[in-house]
Amino acid sequence: MDSKEFRIRGKEMIDLVADYLENIENRQVLPSVKPGYLKDLIPSEAPAHPDKWEDLVSDIERVIMPGVTHWHSPHFHAYFPTANSYPAICADILSDAIACIGFSWIATPACTELEVVMMDWLARLLNMPEFYLASSGGLGGGVIQGTASESVLVTLLSARNKAIHEAKLEHPEWSDYLIRSKLVAYCSDQSHSSFERATLLAPVKCRKLPCDKKYSLRGETLLNAIENDKKEGLIPFFVCATLGTTSVCSYDNLEELGPICHENNIWLHIDAAYAGSAFICPEFRPYLNGVEFSDSFNFNPHKWLLVNFDCSALWIKNRSFIVDSFNVDPIYLKHEHQNVAPDFRHWQIPLGRRFRSLKLWFVMRIYGATGLQDYIRKHVDLAKYFESLVNKDDRFEIVGEVTLGLVCFRLKQSNELNENLLKIITQDAKIYMVPSKINDIYFLRFAICASSTEKRHVEFAWENILKHTDILLKNNQ
Amino acid sequence: MDSKEFRIRGKEMIDLVADYLENIENRQVLPSVKPGYLKDLIPSEAPAHPDKWEDLVSDIERVIMPGVTHWHSPHFHAYFPTANSYPAICADILSDAIACIGFSWIATPACTELEVVMMDWLARLLNMPEFYLASSGGLGGGVIQGTASESVLVTLLSARNKAIHEAKLEHPEWSDYLIRSKLVAYCSDQSHSSFERATLLAPVKCRKLPCDKKYSLRGETLLNAIENDKKEGLIPFFVCATLGTTSVCSYDNLEELGPICHENNIWLHIDAAYAGSAFICPEFRPYLNGVEFSDSFNFNPHKWLLVNFDCSALWIKNRSFIVDSFNVDPIYLKHEHQNVAPDFRHWQIPLGRRFRSLKLWFVMRIYGATGLQDYIRKHVDLAKYFESLVNKDDRFEIVGEVTLGLVCFRLKQSNELNENLLKIITQDAKIYMVPSKINDIYFLRFAICASSTEKRHVEFAWENILKHTDILLKNNQ
Repeated sequence: MDSKEFRIRGKEMIDLVADYLENIENRQVLPSVKPGYLKDLIPSEAPAHPDKWEDLVSDIERVIMPGVTHWHSPHFHAYFPTANSYPAICADILSDAIACIGFSWIATPACTELEVVMMDWLARLLNMPEFYLASSGGLGGGVIQGTASESVLVTLLSARNKAIHEAKLEHPEWSDYLIRSKLVAYCSDQSHSSFERATLLAPVKCRKLPCDKKYSLRGETLLNAIENDKKEGLIPFFVCATLGTTSVCSYDNLEELGPICHENNIWLHIDAAYAGSAFICPEFRPYLNGVEFSDSFNFNPHKWLLVNFDCSALWIKNRSFIVDSFNVDPIYLKHEHQNVAPDFRHWQIPLGRRFRSLKLWFVMRIYGATGLQDYIRKHVDLAKYFESLVNKDDRFEIVGEVTLGLVCFRLKQSNELNENLLKIITQDAKIYMVPSKINDIYFLRFAICASSTEKRHVEFAWENILKHTDILLKNNQ
Repeated sequence: MDSKEFRIRGKEMIDLVADYLENIENRQVLPSVKPGYLKDLIPSEAPAHPDKWEDLVSDIERVIMPGVTHWHSPHFHAYFPTANSYPAICADILSDAIACIGFSWIATPACTELEVVMMDWLARLLNMPEFYLASSGGLGGGVIQGTASESVLVTLLSARNKAIHEAKLEHPEWSDYLIRSKLVAYCSDQSHSSFERATLLAPVKCRKLPCDKKYSLRGETLLNAIENDKKEGLIPFFVCATLGTTSVCSYDNLEELGPICHENNIWLHIDAAYAGSAFICPEFRPYLNGVEFSDSFNFNPHKWLLVNFDCSALWIKNRSFIVDSFNVDPIYLKHEHQNVAPDFRHWQIPLGRRFRSLKLWFVMRIYGATGLQDYIRKHVDLAKYFESLVNKDDRFEIVGEVTLGLVCFRLKQSNELNENLLKIITQDAKIYMVPSKINDIYFLRFAICASSTEKRHVEFAWENILKHTDILLKNNQ
């Protein structure tokens, strides 16, 4: 395909994409295919000679679409949202064309420098502490990671190295292995599984601490755990606090946890993967109070800020901890400017990196701060509307508090009945939700996800839930 | 931006991209900007209200392009190639529109299933052992990772868990920490820095073993190291062999290393990040002989197989080792099919993942196997041509052997003079190369990178090198 043909095919693809997203509501949100469906639809090996473009395009509908879970259908209410916007798609097209690998400043200065400035733009939108901004001239700064899982792993590994270094100063006779065996990280029992996984990979001990009745980790609980571990001769070194948990969108108590971490020389990481985007609205910013105690902060613009995956924003208070942990510098990557501009390869697990800051630039400019705030507020309003519908029906109860775009609810009945309800809703496949469970209470999660979601889709979902509830309860009598 | 406007803006972006790539040769390959150039060209915070699209587009040329190192210029000969093709860009547009997060089968069955089949297509193109193919019905299979760094880290962590498990069977009284302190991984002193970094992160001991005169790690060297470590009570558990080293594109001797790993129950990982793409040509496939001894194999279609970054292909002989190491399964990710289809989140560091197999599908179909082979062969021929030009000039010598698309060469003079030569070539910025150093011998690397590279660009580069050589040697007299 030469550039002349690309001008035709690329534009066809733009129309195909616009057609898909304009009409996505008419597709069944959850596919009906069975595992293994696809391999029977295509050959078992690559064609020896070029296929026709037309055949490839017609296979998108024949082979791919039957197996797509339409995350951008307004009937998709599962997990948390993942972002999708036309400006971000345009930015990705440009990024794909430049197709640089921005592992060092010299490998494409614009890739590194736009990222530095965009992370500052984003930090200012959230009214983050000045020490996280590169332009503050301090040791802090932001970097785009692929996912929150990578962000917390990178952070944990950096904190691990810092803790080992400090322990060695006090106990030069201790080996790295001995010190590692003493390190303890903490999170709440509502933390995302990616943190537990990071501790398995690191590997360090992980204590999942119980939450209060609002599913929030409190200071006293942490303090007790720290003191117990210290008595055992262990070294508490890391706390992962969550703002907006996956199960129920609850918030750990930063203003209690922060000072405790500070006093005990413990790295405080904040995982606000989903909720973080909302903090650009002044009315939701109070959830971030206490961020001034943190050593690192992460949220995913690729979830709720209209920037297509992947774009996970991570800020570090002192970048030297991360750079020192990841720096292995061979000659073919050295360049004369490496002491004056960040080489982001030292800030992440992969060596290579795409030009992802273009997406942030396009999205922040084309929506503007107010446009992004409007987007967040619309989703929160839709969730509040769904909550009001649930509250009108005595058979249901809300689980947790509806603070942003997630509503957790259940029939005031057994877990089994709630499981059956979700099962028949999922089989019907008109809407898609996933469940969660806290303290053995099973519940359904209704998240506002797609950018095209309107009031009528929320009503459609609720009617669908009611229809299946009526049948289920009738059959159950 | 609604879909109506996207139909216009997206198509403008297609033309902008085609214009950029059609005319890329006329741009200076390496930018002249100084660190910090960009922040003065744009505001220090996001606009409150939407910017105009036209202003954004004109800023691409004003703000971004002056700081771009043009990896797809035919004058770019640095590092190794990174792929860029129109079919892959089209696939990425589709992937961005579907914008699913394929962490589990149910989260988009097509995303998982196309990946399974595409990894088999790719394995067949390389004539890989049957045990690596999912369709073989065995325990093996392929997965797309982001980068070779992630591939080797994931593999190392899996092997680490396997080794700990096995050591515990023999010594139930040993702690995990004690066992980890005994684990030893091996590579050659020519391995990519990402492997050493993986061992730092894991963390396990890493022995960088010396190569022979052809920069190849030999069996005897490995065997001696293993025996020495065993005598010390350590546990050799992992070898990272490289096919196509970054410095000089040399090959570790798989047929010697393989049986030694096999006899010593050592996980053999093959890193063929760059060279792997060439193995689709029967004449280069012999470099892969010995792959039948390996436990995992990785190469990057995003380097040399026309699939845009990121697409790093990793195969594992026994997927249970990787799944067991990475599986932390919360209820909101459970689904009823998880025992019959792979949930690729257990095969990688991140939880989320894009629909990257679309790129492989588009590229393999639109080029066909023969088209891809022609592409590889053309680059190798161009490298051979450059080698012939170097060989005609007595002042220069070739370092290593030119086997694929990389030519390493130097003036038969001091390191300092060679460093100066590269420095003035880089300052002139008509072509871009990076250096390397082996056994204190500094040399220049000339890689065929861009898909648009033709014989005339190779001649242009050589003339540029000669011009600077003449001036340098004259000034040096």
